[in-house]
Amino acid sequence: MAGNTFGSIFKLTTFGESHGPALGGVVDGCPAGIALNEAAIQTELDKRRPGQGGLAVTARNEPDRIRLLSGVFEGRTTGTSIGFAIENTDQRSRDYGEIKDVFRPGHGDMTYEAKYGLRDYRGGGRSSGRETVSRVAGGAVAGAFLEPLGITVRAAAVELGGIAAESLDIKGAEHRQFFAADDNAVLRWQELVKKVAAQGDTLGGIVEIRAQGVPAGLGEPVFDKLDARLAAALMSVGAVKGIEIGSGFAASRMRGSENNDAMLDTGFASNNAGGILAGISSGQEIVLRAAIKPIPSIALDQHTRDRFGAARTIRVGGRHDICAIPRVVPVLSAMVRLVLADMVLLQRRMGGGT
Amino acid sequence: MAGNTFGSIFKLTTFGESHGPALGGVVDGCPAGIALNEAAIQTELDKRRPGQGGLAVTARNEPDRIRLLSGVFEGRTTGTSIGFAIENTDQRSRDYGEIKDVFRPGHGDMTYEAKYGLRDYRGGGRSSGRETVSRVAGGAVAGAFLEPLGITVRAAAVELGGIAAESLDIKGAEHRQFFAADDNAVLRWQELVKKVAAQGDTLGGIVEIRAQGVPAGLGEPVFDKLDARLAAALMSVGAVKGIEIGSGFAASRMRGSENNDAMLDTGFASNNAGGILAGISSGQEIVLRAAIKPIPSIALDQHTRDRFGAARTIRVGGRHDICAIPRVVPVLSAMVRLVLADMVLLQRRMGGGT
Amino acid sequence: MAGNTFGSIFKLTTFGESHGPALGGVVDGCPAGIALNEAAIQTELDKRRPGQGGLAVTARNEPDRIRLLSGVFEGRTTGTSIGFAIENTDQRSRDYGEIKDVFRPGHGDMTYEAKYGLRDYRGGGRSSGRETVSRVAGGAVAGAFLEPLGITVRAAAVELGGIAAESLDIKGAEHRQFFAADDNAVLRWQELVKKVAAQGDTLGGIVEIRAQGVPAGLGEPVFDKLDARLAAALMSVGAVKGIEIGSGFAASRMRGSENNDAMLDTGFASNNAGGILAGISSGQEIVLRAAIKPIPSIALDQHTRDRFGAARTIRVGGRHDICAIPRVVPVLSAMVRLVLADMVLLQRRMGGGT
Amino acid sequence: MAGNTFGSIFKLTTFGESHGPALGGVVDGCPAGIALNEAAIQTELDKRRPGQGGLAVTARNEPDRIRLLSGVFEGRTTGTSIGFAIENTDQRSRDYGEIKDVFRPGHGDMTYEAKYGLRDYRGGGRSSGRETVSRVAGGAVAGAFLEPLGITVRAAAVELGGIAAESLDIKGAEHRQFFAADDNAVLRWQELVKKVAAQGDTLGGIVEIRAQGVPAGLGEPVFDKLDARLAAALMSVGAVKGIEIGSGFAASRMRGSENNDAMLDTGFASNNAGGILAGISSGQEIVLRAAIKPIPSIALDQHTRDRFGAARTIRVGGRHDICAIPRVVPVLSAMVRLVLADMVLLQRRMGGGT
Repeated sequence: MAGNTFGSIFKLTTFGESHGPALGGVVDGCPAGIALNEAAIQTELDKRRPGQGGLAVTARNEPDRIRLLSGVFEGRTTGTSIGFAIENTDQRSRDYGEIKDVFRPGHGDMTYEAKYGLRDYRGGGRSSGRETVSRVAGGAVAGAFLEPLGITVRAAAVELGGIAAESLDIKGAEHRQFFAADDNAVLRWQELVKKVAAQGDTLGGIVEIRAQGVPAGLGEPVFDKLDARLAAALMSVGAVKGIEIGSGFAASRMRGSENNDAMLDTGFASNNAGGILAGISSGQEIVLRAAIKPIPSIALDQHTRDRFGAARTIRVGGRHDICAIPRVVPVLSAMVRLVLADMVLLQRRMGGGT
Repeated sequence: MAGNTFGSIFKLTTFGESHGPALGGVVDGCPAGIALNEAAIQTELDKRRPGQGGLAVTARNEPDRIRLLSGVFEGRTTGTSIGFAIENTDQRSRDYGEIKDVFRPGHGDMTYEAKYGLRDYRGGGRSSGRETVSRVAGGAVAGAFLEPLGITVRAAAVELGGIAAESLDIKGAEHRQFFAADDNAVLRWQELVKKVAAQGDTLGGIVEIRAQGVPAGLGEPVFDKLDARLAAALMSVGAVKGIEIGSGFAASRMRGSENNDAMLDTGFASNNAGGILAGISSGQEIVLRAAIKPIPSIALDQHTRDRFGAARTIRVGGRHDICAIPRVVPVLSAMVRLVLADMVLLQRRMGGGT
Repeated sequence: MAGNTFGSIFKLTTFGESHGPALGGVVDGCPAGIALNEAAIQTELDKRRPGQGGLAVTARNEPDRIRLLSGVFEGRTTGTSIGFAIENTDQRSRDYGEIKDVFRPGHGDMTYEAKYGLRDYRGGGRSSGRETVSRVAGGAVAGAFLEPLGITVRAAAVELGGIAAESLDIKGAEHRQFFAADDNAVLRWQELVKKVAAQGDTLGGIVEIRAQGVPAGLGEPVFDKLDARLAAALMSVGAVKGIEIGSGFAASRMRGSENNDAMLDTGFASNNAGGILAGISSGQEIVLRAAIKPIPSIALDQHTRDRFGAARTIRVGGRHDICAIPRVVPVLSAMVRLVLADMVLLQRRMGGGT
Repeated sequence: MAGNTFGSIFKLTTFGESHGPALGGVVDGCPAGIALNEAAIQTELDKRRPGQGGLAVTARNEPDRIRLLSGVFEGRTTGTSIGFAIENTDQRSRDYGEIKDVFRPGHGDMTYEAKYGLRDYRGGGRSSGRETVSRVAGGAVAGAFLEPLGITVRAAAVELGGIAAESLDIKGAEHRQFFAADDNAVLRWQELVKKVAAQGDTLGGIVEIRAQGVPAGLGEPVFDKLDARLAAALMSVGAVKGIEIGSGFAASRMRGSENNDAMLDTGFASNNAGGILAGISSGQEIVLRAAIKPIPSIALDQHTRDRFGAARTIRVGGRHDICAIPRVVPVLSAMVRLVLADMVLLQRRMGGGT
């Protein structure tokens, strides 16, 4: 209820601050008998580490080592809750200086203070992007459940700093820098990132996520439509400011005759719906896009306030990333996997007959 | 769990099909002592009726009369669950002809069949837009709770069929046709709707929703961020295919220095964040946009299939709306009210101290 | 969250006050394709009516006519939410006299006032036993789901006013007065009820509930054990003050060697566990008992207070029941059915493999 | 949903098997600003260790050292989720012999196998009483929240092996062996335990739990009555087979005039209701009793079956406890604290007015 649990049947509950002892979580509701080990989860965690896909450099270079604490026996899930933890190895006490009292623009400092009356200011505490490490671990468990069902989720960066990739090779994206949608984009984005970094500024972009092998029938009517769940999942990632399903905002400018996906003998003639009709999967590929805002930590002076209401100037950047894209791509995939695992389990019992 | 309940503390559970005996719902979690009567809810219901804001004509012209069944005593909520019903007055048996077996493109016919193995095909059953009447009623109860707290939600159509309004007068929108954002838009949209109707085709558009008076501190960290809840709320409305918070997709093309909202003595210098930082309200106005797809029921031949897999051609339109905008605007406002009522109640217990 | 919803997947949400316009509810999560009609629900509702099993006379004699509002099409559930309502036909305005301000001992008057600051005092409002009519309707839907699975729930009164039945013929109980466990009990209880009624006093008793055909494997580990869910279900009925599973309190006085149920070739040698081991059904019969307190409305003077804190004397009885047993038996069966339907659906997705 | 989460607002999610790497959990929904440290939780954990209250000897003697992983900063809760872990220090590989394939009577071996198709047989896995260590830790966090509100929960053993204590000194119980209700009971129980241990057999008993300082108004109407929540909480503890609130089963044998608690100038004249009227706390002391079955692991031959259906004889005992009472008393207190913390937070938002 306080927001650290995701899902209704396949549920992930997470904990952990940027500079606390450890981050981790509990997956509850994963069926018994699924093949699962630490190595499979570690592979996903490694994708969101600095250097894995982005040019950006982060001073912090933790190994993010997963440790499974329960729920797996002899290489298979037992049906009981799966606890896991990732230790924060770099917790050395250091001077947080003005961050302690001054609100960084674009960050949650001011709103956490307003909400709780106090906050763990070290590295953003719970509002840090570091929180997403638990999502990726949970998403990897969801992936282990989905894989034998033939459901695959992939993501790629299709735009960065306003420069769009020209094509979408989503399978290849996993091995490209920035998880870029095509090779050409990599070079252009490298150049832009270098330039903007020199200016002390930061960049945003757009990520496309696709799910293949999703059977028709997932999603619940009315409030728990598959697209509603997916939108919440993606929007719950800090940097996301916009979501599209299928043709998205472009659909609002089409005529009905253009936007409707006709059904032919060979299947659907198009996929403007993004694989979802009336909130329920149609068997087509699920297509989503998320708009990622530029990282708010910039190496430039900004006007702001402190906890006591006084006007202040702050310069935050230095060792930070220039663009969240490389780190956020595996997180968005993880969130989509979590939704699909949940919806598969929900659907198991709603079909016809008893 | 099966998707007919919305919210975690201030909860709305709905029921009802397009051509069943009645639609309705239960609001659970509304605090005691809130002034509430049928007239206030009726006012909201009347807004989503045909003719109330759109030029579109619907053969069906039901009064949608709300009846409060419980939870209110001597004009005030008692804290117990609030049941309500709206009778379907026009249930006359008629011939559903090919609709019974043929899947209408862009509708949920095919996916409901895939999910449940059977469906109430009369007028779309539960997948009908008519379902939203219960949302509007529930949203009106939420509004009655929010109003004494000074929280106001308004919405306006800012684009229709690709033609954008030039300005946003959101207070005036309530009394304009199409709930249009400005006067000029009305004339241009009327003309377009007339033309497209003659072609047997339909239109989409974009709605902007704003919430004023929202205190800082609403929203929960990580998965239940205020924006995640709002995105799910809006995306759960059938016609919505895209969502933006604040600067939305435009944010993905800005630099950090442009997108960050500086804090000055006089408050925030801008509102690219749309009133939400790290998932928690900042005290600024909440700004949302939703992309509405064109209505899938068109008066043109379309290729499709029937329940038995055979290729078919179908022509659906006739008495249907040309654009969902006028009907969807009050629904989107209702959904935002439901989210805010829930988040206000969640926040009551999470603040500092015991 | 505010307590008017029961269940996690097969969910019942109810509304309605004793003297409001109507009572009713919404069943969400019932699978599609289940045979269901109003007559089957009506049969269950009729069991809890005055005169159906008890000698007690109630001035109020409403027909409690069920009306299905949604979720059923051509005699089968569609998988969407099932709304239903029961009109309160006898709402004539009358003088509630001192009840309005004076707290009746043993009733919720004082606690509702403390909780909400106001209350619908007419006939107890939401705290009235009349609320259970919606539980019986919801339980009947659960029964329609369980029946084709071969799961049967029956209940009988095994003790009334301290006089125990000598044997348990649970199938016959349905047709006996008081839903008595055997024929001898009926005569002795009639005599006692007559005597106590003449004294202006009231009686309690004990109900035994049994579920047959429950497959092994229902129930979730740790917090959602099958017995924990059943205990909550039974204890949520107003008059219940104690619960036993299997040998219950007697188990606390046995040795391990007596209480353990050995497994023989022919199955379990005994059923002290009541069909549940480590919170999960074993395939044996589920055995539960509930202690029912005497009805608090007595035709005798009682010391109490009014809303303003002043000492008062009140005499409540007159047209009230002498013992809740006959009305509570069908309610307890309904609650057990609701739990089992939920647990069957939960189990469908937690079993081994993918 | 799969049963490892307890509570609706103040939520505890747990994980961990008897012989896995670690046990632990996540508390979500604890308000910010509560004083909390590891020492306070450790004190509660130490109470459920062998030797802390019972004569029983357990070969396993782990320190159960709590480690807080998140959610606390500078000695106060931050409002974010509180992760914690307790390492299993004694995981040495050993021979589980026949336990691997043979179902121990009275244990969950058979039902876990039926439910999941596989199980972690080492020491009972998730069905082990060792699971309750996470409940005690979570309950200690709840206690830290309740304490400044003046709400205190205490428990005592009032009966063991059929021998009842003669008086109830619940404050003194904390320091007595068996958490006994009075001094005389200790000697008689010691004697009985010694005798029964020599016979290879085991014992059960009854625990009484009382909560003082609970304000009037906690509990939600209908399904989430305070007593329903408490019953579920207690019954979710493995060894519990019966529950009573207030006068419990005795109430079923009283007349209404005996059982009703009159209200005098000085307050209630009695407390048969156990502090709860119509599911809502009345401000009186909350009084609960739980029946604890004898430990199923006995050092005597028992008839049973193995996984393959063959008849077997098994002798389990040896290093096991004779009676669960000393270990279960702190667990029951923890469960009641968890319920009360949840209900306090729920009530904060349901009171009168906006």
